[in-house]
Parts: sequence; C-alpha cells; structure tokens
Amino acid sequence: MSSAPSVGRPRSGARRLPAGTAREEILDAAAELFSERGYAATSTRMIAEMVGVRQASLYYHFSTKEQILAELLESTVRPSLTYAEQLAQQALSPADALQALVRYDVGILLGARWNVGILYALPEIATEPFTRFRAEREQLRSAYRRLVAAVAGTPTADVTGDLVFGMVESVIGMRRDLPALPPPDQLGQSVADAALRLAGSPR
Amino acid sequence: MSSAPSVGRPRSGARRLPAGTAREEILDAAAELFSERGYAATSTRMIAEMVGVRQASLYYHFSTKEQILAELLESTVRPSLTYAEQLAQQALSPADALQALVRYDVGILLGARWNVGILYALPEIATEPFTRFRAEREQLRSAYRRLVAAVAGTPTADVTGDLVFGMVESVIGMRRDLPALPPPDQLGQSVADAALRLAGSPR
Repeated sequence: MSSAPSVGRPRSGARRLPAGTAREEILDAAAELFSERGYAATSTRMIAEMVGVRQASLYYHFSTKEQILAELLESTVRPSLTYAEQLAQQALSPADALQALVRYDVGILLGARWNVGILYALPEIATEPFTRFRAEREQLRSAYRRLVAAVAGTPTADVTGDLVFGMVESVIGMRRDLPALPPPDQLGQSVADAALRLAGSPR
Repeated sequence: MSSAPSVGRPRSGARRLPAGTAREEILDAAAELFSERGYAATSTRMIAEMVGVRQASLYYHFSTKEQILAELLESTVRPSLTYAEQLAQQALSPADALQALVRYDVGILLGARWNVGILYALPEIATEPFTRFRAEREQLRSAYRRLVAAVAGTPTADVTGDLVFGMVESVIGMRRDLPALPPPDQLGQSVADAALRLAGSPR
C-alpha cells in the first residue's frame, strides 16, 4: 500500500509525499493513523511525530483533531458530489450518467492512499464539526436517488437509490476485508453495471 | 427506539430488559453505549453503572471489554449464518433461498435493539478477540456468494456476491443515517428484490 515507516518511528526528514506541503503531509499521516489504529487511539502528538513536525506546527494548520478528520472525510465525498453536478449539466442518458458517477465514486473510494471511508461509522460524526461532511454525503445520496429514479422511470420515492448508494460505499468494506480486489477500473465497471441492474435498467 | 434512560443516569434497580438475566442486561447496556457513544469512549465501569451492578459482577460474566464487543458482533451474523445453513438443507430454488436469506438477515440487522453493526468498522476488529466474528462474517459472505452464483447461473467468481452482501449490510448505515425507514418486513422485501435484480435474475 505504501512504504511509510511503522507508526511512531521518527521521520528524520523523510517526506511522506513526493511533493506534499506540510498541510498535505499532516492529512496523509492522520489518514494512515485514523484508518489503521483508530481515531480515538490517535493523538495530534502522534500525527505530528509521524510527519516530523512540532505539535505547534500542526495546530497552525488544524485547530483540532476533529478538524483533520472532517477534512479527510469531506475529501471522500466532495469530488464525487462535484462530478455529479457536472454530469447534471451534460446531455447524458440517466443510465450513462449513473454509470459514470458510480465509476468515478468507486475510483475516489479505492484510489485514496488510506481507506478513510471506514471512519464513516464513528459516532463522533454526529457532532457539530462534521455538519458539512454529513450534508455533502446526503447531497451525494440525493444525486444517486435522482439518477436511480430517472433510470427506473419511477418518480416515486423508494429505497433503491439508497441501496445503490450503500452498494457503492460497500467497496470501502471490501477494500478492508478482502485479501485481493480487482483493479479499480474493473471493479468500478462491475459496480456500475450492478447499479444499472439494481435500478431496473434492462442493459 | 427505546425508553432507556440517558447515559450515566443511575439505574437504581430499574431493569433494562423485561426478563433479562444480568448477562443479557450487560450486553444490552454495552450495545447502547458502544453504538451511541463509541467503543473507545466506553469503559466497563460505565457499562456496570448503567446496568446497576458492581464492576466485579461484570467481570464475572466478561473478562474484558473486547469479549463483550465480540459477543455483540457475533450476535449480528451468527443467526443469519445458521439460517443460511438451514436453507441449504431445503429444496428451494436459488432465487427463493437468496430472497429468504436477505429478508432474514435484514430482519436481524434492523431488529436488534441497538445498531451494533456500525461497529464492524472498528480497527480493533482486526485483532485476536474478534477472530471468530471475522470468520463467521466471512462464512456468511461465502453463503451469499454461493447463492448469488447459483441464481446468476455463473460458477465463475466475480464480485456480485460481495456487492449483494455489502448492499444487505448497508441497511446498518441506513438505520443510522435516514430519519425514517420503511417497516423492517417491507425493507427486507425491497432488499431481497434488489438482490435478485443484482444477481441478474429476471424475476
């Protein structure tokens, strides 16, 4: 997955990211620690140590641990949300738009260096610092609902949109639990095809 | 969801469960605290206080907090696994068996008093006390894979079985994130129908 040294080892100047700013390196170290050791078990001191900066430098960029987590979580949904808005401007069939969104979203969830999505289940997410993340994730869910309803040709509200959304997010668990996954492009296409079947499209 | 008093309020003899043993009441209180406050933020002392027993009594039943969590997690997969084994003894079509398993599994995940499934994402789950839970969950995943392959008529390994498994488990997130859900029976049937479409059955 990465050649980063094990947790707690002093970095002595090694860069985590080829061309990362201090801010990006803090986010990357936090993503590794949160997803591998757990959010509660990780302190800002540990993050600063892993990057090789003082805690004061970390606090210059992020005032709280929550703020780091919020930014990481937002990075798992905002690109797909932006992409869904771009798709809505294009003259695509609902089926093509749904497939494109699923492929893109799966790419975001599998392409990140660390599997930050597993942190969606933290109870902390219900609190204030995560209001924007929750709102953006619900907007993405709504985009799926709209596309699925358009593909199915049924304007009535049902749970199929939510099931497609849940199935797409389930690649987070697959990435953690399965010893091997198909290449991201191939898995993205499989999930996109599955989304069409789920939505009831004959294709 | 329940009329249990808020966290930390002394119980003074009130029973959490109409006819629960001390062991069941400890599990129920732990399920509430773990799922609502978080696993790391919950101590065995808090669990004992909520039930209204001494910590020594708790340790008589469970030697560690991990052991409590392991038992709670196993209770979310073992009934469905047992049910899948019973289904395999019956002369059902693959489509009927898949639908029955999905309906049952959704019922287990939605019917529990507390939404313990959101704890699947804890990094602690990778450690030794959770070996049996992980093994049983993988057996349940395998049961889905077999049924989905039988419905699809394709013996070749692909990810569709995993996607059905992930879609079924996504009701855990729906239960947490959505303001209202259809009744469990109705949602179970919707997910069962969705599983057949996903598996590629014409029904």
